[in-house]
Parts: sequence; structure tokens; C-alpha cells
Amino acid sequence: MIVVKAGGNGEIDIEAVCDDVAHLVRQGEQVVLVHGGSHETDVISTQLGHPPRFVTSVSGHVSRYTDRRTLEIFAMVAAGRINKLLVERLQRLGVNAVGISGLDGRLLEAKRKSVLRIVENGKRKVLRGEYSGKIERVNPQLLQALLSAGFLPVVAPLAVSYEGEALNVDGDRAAAAIGKALKAECVVILTNVPGLLRDFPDESSLIRFVPADRATEYLERYAKGRMKRKLLGAVEAVSAGVGRVIIADGRTDQPVHRALRGYGTVIA
Amino acid sequence: MIVVKAGGNGEIDIEAVCDDVAHLVRQGEQVVLVHGGSHETDVISTQLGHPPRFVTSVSGHVSRYTDRRTLEIFAMVAAGRINKLLVERLQRLGVNAVGISGLDGRLLEAKRKSVLRIVENGKRKVLRGEYSGKIERVNPQLLQALLSAGFLPVVAPLAVSYEGEALNVDGDRAAAAIGKALKAECVVILTNVPGLLRDFPDESSLIRFVPADRATEYLERYAKGRMKRKLLGAVEAVSAGVGRVIIADGRTDQPVHRALRGYGTVIA
Repeated sequence: MIVVKAGGNGEIDIEAVCDDVAHLVRQGEQVVLVHGGSHETDVISTQLGHPPRFVTSVSGHVSRYTDRRTLEIFAMVAAGRINKLLVERLQRLGVNAVGISGLDGRLLEAKRKSVLRIVENGKRKVLRGEYSGKIERVNPQLLQALLSAGFLPVVAPLAVSYEGEALNVDGDRAAAAIGKALKAECVVILTNVPGLLRDFPDESSLIRFVPADRATEYLERYAKGRMKRKLLGAVEAVSAGVGRVIIADGRTDQPVHRALRGYGTVIA
Repeated sequence: MIVVKAGGNGEIDIEAVCDDVAHLVRQGEQVVLVHGGSHETDVISTQLGHPPRFVTSVSGHVSRYTDRRTLEIFAMVAAGRINKLLVERLQRLGVNAVGISGLDGRLLEAKRKSVLRIVENGKRKVLRGEYSGKIERVNPQLLQALLSAGFLPVVAPLAVSYEGEALNVDGDRAAAAIGKALKAECVVILTNVPGLLRDFPDESSLIRFVPADRATEYLERYAKGRMKRKLLGAVEAVSAGVGRVIIADGRTDQPVHRALRGYGTVIA
């Protein structure tokens, strides 16, 4: 069982990812494909006259404000456009893919982060109406039903709150949580850098191996921006029984095969 | 087993439909919900600068031209926005819904109608690049896997062509085809009129019963516009073993319960 996370930032070669996934399926592997959607959501939100709003938390972290309208556009773009175009591509390659989201079958349950504490023009503010969340539970029954019926699940990063609301969740963390729930042999997280870099953004400074028990140390020393979440998810997954997590370059030929051969940062 | 088709034209009370579906599920019924998407696709296509283009066929039938960009917007709106908001609403009502489309798991296989023969300014033209199709085969394995695992499937009207392309298909025909494949006891098609009308648009002229063996005669005499496809689907479904098809008003309170009590046009 291999969980592959691809896309979200628009730079990953999604055709190459699908080719690799189809190849793995033909070799008899069970695969779950998880994707993103933030980049295209920003583009389409802007076209629809509702451009993304970025806010800075009191701890200095910059994030997207997901109000209800943004959440609905995110659901449309991620679970509609990106998910179904991936399913179409896989179907053409002979893979019987089924597209779902973490909302479906309560696959991903998340705690809604309804209030953001932000800093704007030097002042602290409370921003309400946020529709994003942190995954706390995976109900794998839907994935198990699909996998045992011979389908390849393609998962959009939505979740359901305890109150039954749709939420936007981080795709990398979703892949790690799914890998953990399915006790996957391997989780491959494809991104637009070769892996964790010792001197970001110098791509030649790739760290090839992170021992799981020292991951927190690596995270604090080397991870910048979104790499922090990838590494956090990786640590959670490995400590819960996933064989290894590989953070690897999604911009190359055969990105999944290269990752599985160890090109990237392996956390184990 | 009941298949319910709701929505597509923006007038149906979708909250009332979900309440009814949740009630049926609590009574132990198996339900499949099929929805539309054309109306909202027209709205969002226009907002995205790609307004719908309507064409007149050589036989005088007016239809929407689904070029590739329209197909992608349709997938986004129907399988992303409408489908996931329905799933969210059902989840809040305690129903463990799973949203899919006819593309997923090759649920609906359709013959692509890639060329339209149209009349424009009095001249006959051939219009290529159409992405809609006519459902020819239902592969019910995905629905069966979901139903036997206890999920309620919510289906967006996309299909897959024999060449693996995503296609836009008619939601009413999709519901009838699914009802037929699952040998449903009943298919309920909710619309924005009370049923088949003897004197369209006089709503008091409702035809309460159409015997299946005389349906073609009723179709030719009374069905106008989109009602033709509803009746066509109904005839196909009933002749393939579905107990009855009910075309009923979706604008009322308890629309599904009312339909099941026989308010509407019953084809049996």
C-alpha cells in the first residue's frame, strides 16, 4: 500500500504522476492518490471576484483566510475540477479510479479552527468565520470499501467538522493521516523542491535521510514554510507505523518511481 | 431501493429533499441521490467569462454546446460544488453520504456525441468538440460497494466515454439508468412542474398515471421540452424492471414523500 500526495502548487507534473501510479497499479500495488487545490483555488477565486485574503497570525505565520465563500470555491475546484480531471486521466490509462474527498463517508474528521487571531496594521484582531481545520480522526471504511472492490481512490483535501461542516484541510497532512490509518508501507509527498534542504533554497543541499527520532530537531533547524507541515505529517505517520515517508521532487520525469528509489528526503 | 433525482434548474427545494432522504434512510430504505448542474454551470461559466452557447440542431432541438472548457466547468460545478454541498447537508442530518460522479469507477459509460449538426443564420453547420454523451452502459459495482458498506451515494451527472473522456450527461436519464441497473423499486424524478401536463403549462392539467405500454403515445402527445427526456428515461427504466417511475414537483414541502404517495405522474 502506497499513498502518494501530488499537486496543489501548480508546478508538479501531474501527467507523470498519473503514469507512475498506473504503472504501480499494473504491478499489483494498492495506491491511494491525494491531491491539493490551493493554487487553482486562488486563480479561480480571483476570476470569480473573490481573491484570496492572506492574514498573519499573532505568531507571525501567514495563511489564507478561508471564509465560507472561499470554502465553497475550494470544494468546487479541488473536489470537482482537479479531482475529476485526475480521475479522467487515470481512467484513460486503464486505472479504475474513484474520486472522493475527506468529507465523503466522514473519511477525514477535523476540528474546525473557526477563529483566527491575527495581526493587521500592527493591531491584534479576531477574525471569525474560518472554514479550515486540523485532521483529528480518519475513518478508513470508505477507502477500505473502494480498495477491496478494486478501485483506486483519489482524495481531495476536504474534511468534515464534528458539527458536520465541510472544511479545507492541508493536503500533505491528509496524505500522512491516511497513510497512518491504512498502515501504508510508504507515503510519497511530491513537492516543488527536491526534499528537505539544509540551506534553503539551495537545491544541492538536499538532506537524504532523517531518522524519525531526530525529526523534530531537523524540523526546527531546516524546515521553512510549508516544509514544516510536510515534516510534521511525516513524523506522525512514521511514529504510527508507516514504513517510511519520502518527500521528493514532483517536477521531474517518473516522480513517484524516483521517490520510491530514495531520491528525496526519506523519513524512517 | 429508491433512486431520487433532484435539482439542476435551481428551483427545487434541496433542503426539503435532503430532509426527506434522511428520513427514508432512518426508516431503513436504501437511497441513491442523483443531481443536476446545468443551471449553476451557466451562472458560473458566465462569471468566468465563458457564457453558455445554445445551438439549434437540424431537427429544431435547442441544446447547450459543451466544449471542453464548458465540460471542465460543468465537472467543477456539478461534481465539486453541488455534489459536496449535498454531501455536507446530508452529513449534518446524520446520513453518511458519499459523493461521486458517473465518471468514477466507470459508473456511467456513454457514447460521445462529438459532432453537432446545427443550423445557424439559416445555414447548416457541423460543430465539433462537443463533450456530451448518451449513457449506454451502467457499471453498478461502485454503487454496490458503497451501498453494502452502508453509505448513501450522491451522483453527479458525468459519464466516461469509451475513449476515457469525461462527458456531460442528462441527469434525468442518469437517474433512470441507475434505477434500471439496480432494479430499484422506484425512481423519483423531481422537477419544477407537478408532473406531465395535459395542457402545458396549466398545472391543473396533471396526468396522474401513464401505463408503461402507452408511454410513447403520451410522450408524443403531451411531453414538451425537457419532459420528453424524463418520460423517455422513465419508459426505459420501467420496461427494464423498475417498479415505477414518478415525475413529481420538487418545489414543495416533503417532495420525495409526496411523490412516493403518488402526487405526480406515475409511470408503471
